[in-house]
Amino acid sequence: MPATLKRLAIIGVGLIGGSIGLAARRRRLAEEIVGVVRSESSGRRAMECGAVDSATTNLETAVAKADVVVVCTPVSQVAGHLLQAASACPQSALLTDAGSTKQRIVADTEAGLAKLGAAPSFVGSHPLAGDHRTGPESARHDLLEGRRVVVTPSENSAADAVDRTQQFWRSLGAETVEMSPADHDRALSHTSHLPHLIAAAVATATPSEALPLTATGWRDHTRVAAGDPALWRDILLANRGYVIAALNEFEETIGDFRQAIADRDGEKLQHLLDQGRQRRDVVGD
Amino acid sequence: MPATLKRLAIIGVGLIGGSIGLAARRRRLAEEIVGVVRSESSGRRAMECGAVDSATTNLETAVAKADVVVVCTPVSQVAGHLLQAASACPQSALLTDAGSTKQRIVADTEAGLAKLGAAPSFVGSHPLAGDHRTGPESARHDLLEGRRVVVTPSENSAADAVDRTQQFWRSLGAETVEMSPADHDRALSHTSHLPHLIAAAVATATPSEALPLTATGWRDHTRVAAGDPALWRDILLANRGYVIAALNEFEETIGDFRQAIADRDGEKLQHLLDQGRQRRDVVGD
Repeated sequence: MPATLKRLAIIGVGLIGGSIGLAARRRRLAEEIVGVVRSESSGRRAMECGAVDSATTNLETAVAKADVVVVCTPVSQVAGHLLQAASACPQSALLTDAGSTKQRIVADTEAGLAKLGAAPSFVGSHPLAGDHRTGPESARHDLLEGRRVVVTPSENSAADAVDRTQQFWRSLGAETVEMSPADHDRALSHTSHLPHLIAAAVATATPSEALPLTATGWRDHTRVAAGDPALWRDILLANRGYVIAALNEFEETIGDFRQAIADRDGEKLQHLLDQGRQRRDVVGD
Repeated sequence: MPATLKRLAIIGVGLIGGSIGLAARRRRLAEEIVGVVRSESSGRRAMECGAVDSATTNLETAVAKADVVVVCTPVSQVAGHLLQAASACPQSALLTDAGSTKQRIVADTEAGLAKLGAAPSFVGSHPLAGDHRTGPESARHDLLEGRRVVVTPSENSAADAVDRTQQFWRSLGAETVEMSPADHDRALSHTSHLPHLIAAAVATATPSEALPLTATGWRDHTRVAAGDPALWRDILLANRGYVIAALNEFEETIGDFRQAIADRDGEKLQHLLDQGRQRRDVVGD
């Protein structure tokens, strides 16, 4: 990847896409940053937060002269946007994305690219950044700084394209880690998708009249449930198999807790709590 | 309660007890603040963080001339310390505590006080403050500021003692809310105890190799699991009935999520996520 890109095209300028734009502008990563948006009003919002030099609803025009195209739309739309971009961008361009699940996106995109014949390179990615907020107004130039981006090549990925993808994210201040789409989806079912649905279930199961008695613990524990339900529906369904497997493991553990409490088995209960704390402490506050 | 107390005795000078001491000193609530500690070294720590004027391992001496005694030890020790204080403090003193569960503490304490015959007034309390950290080093003079303290009178409590208890917490900057010990324990099983055991179970069920892929969501969701396992063992066992009932309600909700994911029922899943978000949004970030 050249030190400076001619054009970076960001498809979907929300929290992640906007933060990529802000970081790229601040680091002078590209001569031109073009955002692809759904509507004129979202284009105005993307421009106002300074994430892109220009915004358009026309994907084909935006990617026409792009060196790098990064798709930051909801997971159910990522493969479609990647394939749309692949048909309109230079053959030399690199395509990547920021979707929270990878197996289906990578499989669908590679299947589509194979039908196109000659096509630009694609390597899937997932930046482990962002939170429950959405929209370009929440974007920050340092959102990716020091954060991990998982780059998920398949057996079809060219080594050169994987390198370029890693360099792209590193040039935005992120660290990269490489793993297969399946390994990514299995890990994320535990670290992201399961916590989301558990948080939503804990919030739902809290009676309204108890809400005034919540404190930091409940607020931290359930915060992620404030995320966009439509986005999360798609993520949970896209990673259905691993999410259910993670839920099964969680239910087994919860069963142990339940038994220890029901049996008034203080020693067992403390051991279980200890295990949880040790696992938690590895990660840091 | 007089504008200024002669002596405030704090039994157990950790995060909560230490924060009460810091707030009381800053607000000149008492002429003298005495901390009761387990050992000389914990006394030194309490003195070093400025939470108390003096520290002693002798509970009887500390409470001898106290106007207010607040017990901030682990829930399994609270009733014992309250009764020990009741035998040694002036009849005019007010006794309260900061325990996270209330039914058993209030019942055990009142049963013990009844045996004493003439005894000082006791009203149970629970400040909804604090986090997973422990020890006087984590204490903050503003920990209670604007936070809710649940005051839990029983049918045996004198109105005057309830008033004094409310005034004590308000004079430290907290808001008070009054409810029965049972109502408190039922609400807290949802807002505090269930999230704790769920967080520990989610942390435990996360495979070690996935931990490097955790981000803000997992960290927020599981943070509370970093709390002291021995303290939480006692809390969960003391509130066993309500905790199991809350766990049952949670499991029903999780069952709905599981079914919607297994059935690929996007509409149902989005509805469930929406419910969770709405409940979460009531509380604010």
